[in-house]
Amino acid sequence: MTGVVTLVGAGPGDPDLITVKGRRAIETADVILHDRLIDKRALGWAPPRAEIIDVGKRFGLEEEIQTSIMSIAIDRARRGFHVVRLKGGDPFVFGRGIEEWQTFVAAGIDVVAVPGVSSALAAGPIAGVGLTLRGIARSFTVVTGHTITDVGIAWDRYAAADTLVVLMGVANRQRIARRLIDCGRPASEPVVFVENATSETEFVVAATLADVAAGEVQVESPAVWIIGPVIHSRVAFEAQC
Amino acid sequence: MTGVVTLVGAGPGDPDLITVKGRRAIETADVILHDRLIDKRALGWAPPRAEIIDVGKRFGLEEEIQTSIMSIAIDRARRGFHVVRLKGGDPFVFGRGIEEWQTFVAAGIDVVAVPGVSSALAAGPIAGVGLTLRGIARSFTVVTGHTITDVGIAWDRYAAADTLVVLMGVANRQRIARRLIDCGRPASEPVVFVENATSETEFVVAATLADVAAGEVQVESPAVWIIGPVIHSRVAFEAQC
Repeated sequence: MTGVVTLVGAGPGDPDLITVKGRRAIETADVILHDRLIDKRALGWAPPRAEIIDVGKRFGLEEEIQTSIMSIAIDRARRGFHVVRLKGGDPFVFGRGIEEWQTFVAAGIDVVAVPGVSSALAAGPIAGVGLTLRGIARSFTVVTGHTITDVGIAWDRYAAADTLVVLMGVANRQRIARRLIDCGRPASEPVVFVENATSETEFVVAATLADVAAGEVQVESPAVWIIGPVIHSRVAFEAQC
Repeated sequence: MTGVVTLVGAGPGDPDLITVKGRRAIETADVILHDRLIDKRALGWAPPRAEIIDVGKRFGLEEEIQTSIMSIAIDRARRGFHVVRLKGGDPFVFGRGIEEWQTFVAAGIDVVAVPGVSSALAAGPIAGVGLTLRGIARSFTVVTGHTITDVGIAWDRYAAADTLVVLMGVANRQRIARRLIDCGRPASEPVVFVENATSETEFVVAATLADVAAGEVQVESPAVWIIGPVIHSRVAFEAQC
């Protein structure tokens, strides 16, 4: 009897922001293949007998590790096990979730998809910000900042977004801010970076695009970067957990 | 002692796609104010003593109901109760979550924000689609189709999105499809509508923009509409729950 692979989004950081369905998958797992940024407390829900494998990518070894993840998962599923592939955030937003799913299906293995709360959406409320707001923003765009140095990426399109959310955009933040300003986004536009969203070390940095372009904003990765007039409507509140 | 309001995203449909933290809020609620599209099974987690109030909007009464929601929540919180404001999907995506939060803070009441899985992101995997895909889509844009008849909405910007996700876009689908094609989106572009995502009646309709523009696509609200080349990479699979 062939097993099954469950692709689970672990959510943005706080282990309790996994879904009930995702937690149940962990509780019934025989094997868990998890990314590096997962909060390890989530692994405490696994049965004691479960095989738990950290498959976090190491710089320069991404493709080897990806191949290894696939072969371990397929091997265990073929032996009849319940394999949980646990990814931070949502597996289907910049997460290779679809690529892994295609590989499992090609190998004849059933897949169950359990979405998670994406950090792209969870970061806003931490700063008291909604990505949409009546009369202010009717849409939002989520983009990776990882690839700004690639040719052919039309930052003029992203510059025109109502609300722009940049993931993996800390290292390139000066370049991104300059490009957005060059493409017509006001230099005075407010921005927030939310570091380690929903974890115990979460931290919000508020600034303007001009500040970021000038290299005056200190922020550490991983952080979600939100840009747009919705930030003028930030809720002023005392942090609650 | 003043109580607290917890703003909770119930997720896209399946009650088990609420977060663990959201479920715990329901389990400890004294009062629950919930939207109409919530799966009622989620209310079964509430303590027997909890006051449960359906505050789903009725057409034409939106503002009166919104005022009433606020005043009930503030009244109960001031009496020391734990009030849960339970909204479908994520409260901070087209959900007035920030507006409600502002009102509670102005009334001196503490708010805890618990994000949920937005149907905008959960719908893709149901159809075997990721909103991003290496080499195909480096970003996605989520927009409301509810307001296409308003002046000043630049559908040319939305037409240029890598992947475009339209919420509340069923009634206006012909108009939206025509506008996107007029703005340069290929008429042959594949689209999927995901009706009642993650509920027992979920249903996927695949077509092209041209089909939608021609009025040839039957789909019922509520549905999430996904447009873009990522759909060429749909995973072919047997439905799993």
